[in-house]
Amino acid sequence: MSDPHFLPLVGAPPPERRDAARNRELLLDAAKKLVERCGARSVTMDAVAAAAGVGKGTVFRRFTSREGLMAAVLNHSETEWQALVMGGPAPLGPGAEPWDRLLAFGRSRLDTTLLHAELIREAGRSGGRARGAYSFAATHVRYLLTQLGVTGDIALLAVALLAPLELPIDEPETLDDFPAERVFEGWVDLARRIAGR
Amino acid sequence: MSDPHFLPLVGAPPPERRDAARNRELLLDAAKKLVERCGARSVTMDAVAAAAGVGKGTVFRRFTSREGLMAAVLNHSETEWQALVMGGPAPLGPGAEPWDRLLAFGRSRLDTTLLHAELIREAGRSGGRARGAYSFAATHVRYLLTQLGVTGDIALLAVALLAPLELPIDEPETLDDFPAERVFEGWVDLARRIAGR
Repeated sequence: MSDPHFLPLVGAPPPERRDAARNRELLLDAAKKLVERCGARSVTMDAVAAAAGVGKGTVFRRFTSREGLMAAVLNHSETEWQALVMGGPAPLGPGAEPWDRLLAFGRSRLDTTLLHAELIREAGRSGGRARGAYSFAATHVRYLLTQLGVTGDIALLAVALLAPLELPIDEPETLDDFPAERVFEGWVDLARRIAGR
Repeated sequence: MSDPHFLPLVGAPPPERRDAARNRELLLDAAKKLVERCGARSVTMDAVAAAAGVGKGTVFRRFTSREGLMAAVLNHSETEWQALVMGGPAPLGPGAEPWDRLLAFGRSRLDTTLLHAELIREAGRSGGRARGAYSFAATHVRYLLTQLGVTGDIALLAVALLAPLELPIDEPETLDDFPAERVFEGWVDLARRIAGR
């Protein structure tokens, strides 16, 4: 027990856990790419296993069920998206003008909620939306509106500005009337009205 | 069997059913008044029975459970509110200028969703929002925006304009930060921006 190889390194998980975490990420990345390419509904555990180069048993062991996998992909995707907003390339990430960041946010949030609405459906009871997903988006919009010099009740204006981007999740049945291109175009007009531009 | 008293009148429910329907309305009105006065959480079946002047057994027979009663009050209240919008006194009902109707709609919808958010919580599994409640409000806002001569994607603008009024139902935990007076004030500002006034 005095062999230093048996002592965990301070601040680093033991190698087995690190491997497990890496495998989990690989599986989630493979699953997310398949979902983006083919739609959540048509993605099978077999296809995820094949894309990640592991056996189907491994996928089941990690995620218990197809629903469990979909719920994990949902969380993974939201976390990735938040990281892009906070530190990814401009204009979605920092460094661009606030108006350009707001437009990039709108486009990217809409695509993300379209994907997530599908994942929430496929995750069934395992799923539900990542806690904090809405409040992260709301905080970011409030920040950008403030940067744009918008006055008034910023929190309430942010609620209004986010609403059309949430349509895929809140009212999925209305999406036939609101294809993504139309939502984005209308949303830019809304953002201009709210920001007074 | 040839006695006409045994034949139901064409187009009229039999007397027993008419009485039952009237009793149901009386109970729902009594329950709704109590909910408005004391808050849904504190309303008991005993209090509703006493207010309507019937035995508690009658209330249980009609609504099965406290949750069932709360769900019925929710539907009853939404139906009443829709009737006021369509044919009640101006400015909520027809006859006022579209801008005044829009302001009356915002105030009244906010109060209604505050009440309904409570009822949805108390109705538990029996409840859930009345189907069509959102789409009725959305249709009315689209109509008023059109009357106001607003151009653009009216359906999408209506989604944005409704969102803050839906806060009590969609994000009840944020209500501590958004008391009703603040929501209404911010909402009028939002309506001005969206309608370009």
